[in-house]
Amino acid sequence: MKLFNKVAIVGTGLIGGSIALAIKKKKLAGEVVGVSRHKRSLLLAKRKGAIDAGSQALDIVKDADLLILATPVNTIIDLAPRVAKVVNKRCIVTDVGSTKKEIVSILGKAFPNYVGSHPLAGSEKRSILNAHANIFKDSLCILTPTENTHKKALNKIRMLWSQLGARVILLKPQTHDKILSFVSHLPHTVAFSLINSIPVGYLKFAATGLKDATRIAASDSQLWEDILLSNRKNILKSIEFFQDNLSKIKSAIQRKDKKSLALILKKAQLKRTKLA
Amino acid sequence: MKLFNKVAIVGTGLIGGSIALAIKKKKLAGEVVGVSRHKRSLLLAKRKGAIDAGSQALDIVKDADLLILATPVNTIIDLAPRVAKVVNKRCIVTDVGSTKKEIVSILGKAFPNYVGSHPLAGSEKRSILNAHANIFKDSLCILTPTENTHKKALNKIRMLWSQLGARVILLKPQTHDKILSFVSHLPHTVAFSLINSIPVGYLKFAATGLKDATRIAASDSQLWEDILLSNRKNILKSIEFFQDNLSKIKSAIQRKDKKSLALILKKAQLKRTKLA
Repeated sequence: MKLFNKVAIVGTGLIGGSIALAIKKKKLAGEVVGVSRHKRSLLLAKRKGAIDAGSQALDIVKDADLLILATPVNTIIDLAPRVAKVVNKRCIVTDVGSTKKEIVSILGKAFPNYVGSHPLAGSEKRSILNAHANIFKDSLCILTPTENTHKKALNKIRMLWSQLGARVILLKPQTHDKILSFVSHLPHTVAFSLINSIPVGYLKFAATGLKDATRIAASDSQLWEDILLSNRKNILKSIEFFQDNLSKIKSAIQRKDKKSLALILKKAQLKRTKLA
Repeated sequence: MKLFNKVAIVGTGLIGGSIALAIKKKKLAGEVVGVSRHKRSLLLAKRKGAIDAGSQALDIVKDADLLILATPVNTIIDLAPRVAKVVNKRCIVTDVGSTKKEIVSILGKAFPNYVGSHPLAGSEKRSILNAHANIFKDSLCILTPTENTHKKALNKIRMLWSQLGARVILLKPQTHDKILSFVSHLPHTVAFSLINSIPVGYLKFAATGLKDATRIAASDSQLWEDILLSNRKNILKSIEFFQDNLSKIKSAIQRKDKKSLALILKKAQLKRTKLA
């Protein structure tokens, strides 16, 4: 089902590349073009059949009717005014940034037909090398429309993600950022701190537990620098929540308080079991 | 290759059941018997072919030449004097407890031919239902002999774990407990605190990251209560290490200190990537 004539994807990494592959596979667009700073990424994207044409210059997005900004958060914000000069005013624009309040406020002003997206997919891996058409299958995609969002643009973006296999949920940008600070940004912050706490010489004793718990610490550090600073206030609050919970368990161990410890561990076990 | 005539396993759960299955599969013993408080566990162990006979009473271990205590840490300690009254003095005895200093000190006195073991295998799952003969394949098994440990007993236990597919490493009990407080007990403590910090209503937005980071929080809470209290001092130190690292990242976010944040995240990324 063709939804768009020409889709332009700025940033042909794991997420941008996977969107391109999925659009191609589902035949959702007449043409898919890619923009990247890296020649090699464009070359690989073309070789994988993700894009029909690629360019290091923004001019290629000119007559697109769907534009997807799929770069790290700060680059999305930096690129917006430059892209706005090139792209058609009627073009539907979205992004895949992991924080939304700041991006939605800036991109909502730069593009008349903008809708914020955040696909909760991907992994600690990066680059077009790991891109796959099916990474959005059975995932969640949060859209963050505002009172200024055009219904038609919202519907098209909603259809796009549905076609890519994602379950779409609408949230206010600030609600998105608050929830994500807990379910994504806090776990990453904790994983970064956990792996940094393990003495290097002990790493050879790591079993599945430590590996699972720190897998996301291998995520792109540049990307996460942007996210943590862009969603600063919410993340600081979620860290404090976590610090309180850690203090409780620490204090129970300190006091040899078997009863409190049992309650804390039982609560965690039940809650995690629910998560499947 | 037969190593033992009669192996008795006290605690036919995930680890005990898996050892039994592996011993059977590799034909390492003439006979394997199991002890459990739970009739159902014995029934399932027998049905799975893990044990030849099972009993809720300790008498069944009487003429074993290998005895494995595979219950939670506190139960190992509680059972030791009762088992010592029944078992043959020449019987080689080991346990699979996740902390070693306390257990080795008590069991070393209770059994003349004791060697402490800690197989770094298993998962957040439990019970004989999840037991498999191959869970020790390519895993690490730490043995914790002391100056009182008999060479012959140590060699037999070392051969047992090698036959089960584990790579064997010898450590002093207190070194084991220090290392494990970082590579296993700290990650569990962090995972318990992390899942307890997520508001229940937000759980539906959890993607792979949070799920991976908290998988071990579904572990048996009774087992972990014992571990955290048995290795109390080391764990409190490892928690403090972690708290310092978390404070550093929090402070960098607070101060909008891009440079410090970049260094912390890059360090974590490189360290985690090494872990494979």
